Amino acid sequence: MGNDEFSISCPAPQTAADTIQLAHGGGGRAMAQLLDRVFRPAFANPMLARQHDGAAFELAGRCAFTTDSFVVKPLFFPGGDIGKLAVYGTVNDLAMCGARPLYLSAGFILEEGLPLDTLHRVVASMQAAAKQAGVHVVTGDIKVVDRGMADGIFINTAGIGHIVASVAIEPQNVHPGDAVILSGDIGRHGMAVMAARQGFGFETAIESDCAPLAAPVLALLEAGIELHCLRDLTRGGLASALVEIAETAGVAVDLEEQAIPVRDDIRSACELLGLDPLHVANEGRFAAFVAAKDAKRAVEALSRHDVSRGAVVIGEVAASPPGQVSSRGILGPARAIDMLSGEQLPRIC
Amino acid sequence: MGNDEFSISCPAPQTAADTIQLAHGGGGRAMAQLLDRVFRPAFANPMLARQHDGAAFELAGRCAFTTDSFVVKPLFFPGGDIGKLAVYGTVNDLAMCGARPLYLSAGFILEEGLPLDTLHRVVASMQAAAKQAGVHVVTGDIKVVDRGMADGIFINTAGIGHIVASVAIEPQNVHPGDAVILSGDIGRHGMAVMAARQGFGFETAIESDCAPLAAPVLALLEAGIELHCLRDLTRGGLASALVEIAETAGVAVDLEEQAIPVRDDIRSACELLGLDPLHVANEGRFAAFVAAKDAKRAVEALSRHDVSRGAVVIGEVAASPPGQVSSRGILGPARAIDMLSGEQLPRIC
Repeated sequence: MGNDEFSISCPAPQTAADTIQLAHGGGGRAMAQLLDRVFRPAFANPMLARQHDGAAFELAGRCAFTTDSFVVKPLFFPGGDIGKLAVYGTVNDLAMCGARPLYLSAGFILEEGLPLDTLHRVVASMQAAAKQAGVHVVTGDIKVVDRGMADGIFINTAGIGHIVASVAIEPQNVHPGDAVILSGDIGRHGMAVMAARQGFGFETAIESDCAPLAAPVLALLEAGIELHCLRDLTRGGLASALVEIAETAGVAVDLEEQAIPVRDDIRSACELLGLDPLHVANEGRFAAFVAAKDAKRAVEALSRHDVSRGAVVIGEVAASPPGQVSSRGILGPARAIDMLSGEQLPRIC
Repeated sequence: MGNDEFSISCPAPQTAADTIQLAHGGGGRAMAQLLDRVFRPAFANPMLARQHDGAAFELAGRCAFTTDSFVVKPLFFPGGDIGKLAVYGTVNDLAMCGARPLYLSAGFILEEGLPLDTLHRVVASMQAAAKQAGVHVVTGDIKVVDRGMADGIFINTAGIGHIVASVAIEPQNVHPGDAVILSGDIGRHGMAVMAARQGFGFETAIESDCAPLAAPVLALLEAGIELHCLRDLTRGGLASALVEIAETAGVAVDLEEQAIPVRDDIRSACELLGLDPLHVANEGRFAAFVAAKDAKRAVEALSRHDVSRGAVVIGEVAASPPGQVSSRGILGPARAIDMLSGEQLPRIC
């Protein structure tokens, strides 16, 4: 579970005081102390300080609301950890609704025996990620389950954002002729987690792309780009995201295979494992469906942000056959792209 | 894990098609099918039907936001189940903020091998509970973890409500002289779960008090009661709730022990197990701190709702000693009431 360097090189004897106990989830004194020592200092803000059953704030206008649970294994991997994922994952879902992320909730399910040090590291990572993404964790919950009944830490976050887009950004708005833009190279998160889990030789070079995506999305909106749909490319990868949208919108998506950026080391690792990079999960990449007339300006706006510097047009939307995504290589006929039917990489996020 | 009666009396051979597989959490075809077959029909509403990364709706004014994870064991118990708890728990936290509950998110962590039938029953129970409480489940997430890495189903819900109260309802507003009102008899949820888990002889008679609490809270607000603080009496029971509030507000709470309603069967069961009913969890009870002048009217307003028909004044707030809760019996000196220091009933919600 990747504790820290110290405990690997020189394991200190661990007492009950160093680990999570069932009492930490009991609603009594031990839970109050855990909240005061670990959570409230990390997420310090006036709403948490009220110590009530929920947070209160003013909202006006159209809001987005979303949730994700995180069960990634291992908890720490090159380029990220479960805490960072839990913040960016929900921030990114809000961004995909055309919203500026504002507030997060955080629900922790902790396994009895979890080292407190591990919890501290995860919470510190969430705090840093929330700061980076400009959101506040304003309400939370802790549950503890008995040893063997969870795998260290599971985290759920839910998020609220203020929708900035003036028209709905959703699959139903995708139309034939739209350009499909990919915000950067794909496959890094999935391969980084695989490497960390299974100890392949290539782990040092591959870091997760885990990053917040609200800034480039807001940049598209500020530039007045006619945005029809956005989707982050997490579980199931680029392929599943595009197929889902094509099916919901009742359109076809035609991709130019060679336009899709995949790093050489990712491509090699995928080949080695028999994986298609189009199915591998990302945590800092998204696809944007925009009016063809705005495609060039959209790529320019994206390329001004580090996280989307590699943005490119990878294809376009056609009227038929509805629900079909196909990819044309330099040579040979187009191949049909489908969602995964089975499970390729469990517990990637 | 309490599957159903059928599988106990006549176990049908279970195939992979009848159970949750890792692929159901993979973001691909199997997950899409699970969403279409189990979740979307149950929670049918226009927002879920958009099939996007989040829900969108209009909000205006002061809002409450809260979250809870649910890990109760067993999943089904007399008077409720994890699905009902997951809806009412978050609805009740919103009510305690003086808010009318509106929207819920639902994040499911499912264990590989979970019977689909169990999931169906839990989702149907959530649907019924949401209808009962007048809220909509508008966004959700499914994760699947490998066999042995969770205990059947964990559920997180987060909720958004519109704050109806014109002044903040929070511990900081509790003042010396306030009346402390309890909405009904205590100890039923904790004892019902204990009985279901451990098979005591008394299980048939004890049902959880699990219920939504927004209606009686809104009734207090509509009656113009000067409400200072509300708290539902879940983990840690009445004792922990009152101590937390006394400590945050810097006041003392003096209780009349004999005014606190506890059913005879609950009191006997608690005595048998060496438990104090004041520490036992409830899922349909709350304490209200109100201006003394309004105490009688508050009890009258509460008694017009089934869920709070047994409301009574159980004590009052004093200036000192700050943070102390004490209880006076008919005979003898007052005893100090504290939070639980250890864990009495793990995984009660």
